[in-house]
Amino acid sequence: MPTPTALTALDVPPRQKRSIYPEPFASLMEGRTKRVLGNLFGLSNFGVNLTTLAPGGSSALRHAHSKQDEFIYILAGHPTLHTDAGRQRLAPGMCAGFKAGTGDAHRLLNETDAEVLYLEVGDRTAGDEAHYPDDDLVAREVGGGWQFFHKDGQPY
Amino acid sequence: MPTPTALTALDVPPRQKRSIYPEPFASLMEGRTKRVLGNLFGLSNFGVNLTTLAPGGSSALRHAHSKQDEFIYILAGHPTLHTDAGRQRLAPGMCAGFKAGTGDAHRLLNETDAEVLYLEVGDRTAGDEAHYPDDDLVAREVGGGWQFFHKDGQPY
Repeated sequence: MPTPTALTALDVPPRQKRSIYPEPFASLMEGRTKRVLGNLFGLSNFGVNLTTLAPGGSSALRHAHSKQDEFIYILAGHPTLHTDAGRQRLAPGMCAGFKAGTGDAHRLLNETDAEVLYLEVGDRTAGDEAHYPDDDLVAREVGGGWQFFHKDGQPY
Repeated sequence: MPTPTALTALDVPPRQKRSIYPEPFASLMEGRTKRVLGNLFGLSNFGVNLTTLAPGGSSALRHAHSKQDEFIYILAGHPTLHTDAGRQRLAPGMCAGFKAGTGDAHRLLNETDAEVLYLEVGDRTAGDEAHYPDDDLVAREVGGGWQFFHKDGQPY
């Protein structure tokens, strides 16, 4: 596909693969739909997705990145932001940033009856690791892809 | 200020300095207001701003980055996207990405009577240059700041 000049984000077909997590975690992401935006324009230094959470859905397992910053901007709905500080209900027009290396793990939950829509941005610094304090999971970025391990080092 | 968990983007005070351009270019940015969001959360790998264009305002001089990718998402209003391909009127929910190194220069213009509001994202790859095909200006990133030159190499 030629690089578009501009497009309507919701017109982009959702990513087919729901999650790159190993089971039993991938199935927990069934309520999440990602439209990959940045890559469509050839961007490679950071990624931008338009993500939808159905009622009961979540953005991810609660995680903290070692090297890659993240940012979210809420477009619709009222997701719950869950961090080490606890839980906070967000609203359209709110945003949050998750600095790499702090160890503070985050996720969004849709605990409402309405759909949640948000933009998520993350950079692609090499050698990143994601830590999951609530789950037996560690992720390591290798060559642009992710490898998943148990906390004892065994691969999934 | 302690790092917030989340905040309402429009509650962030606008950046005081309207533009880092030298004159006569800085005055052309009077209609533009930037709220710096990413830095508030300590993010350093990329920047995110919430930017407002008053009627007649523009996002920047038309420019192309050598190393830093850019992405915009329109939240309100109908800005005109001006690139080498020409001019295209955008609408809320539309987005565009500007891949570094293509040489295709871009800017947004507000040619309407209503305010334009958009998110802009750009990474911070070192050693970036910005080229301005329509103006006697070259920008070079040095140590996280920008230095401005005439096209003949003379500094502003």
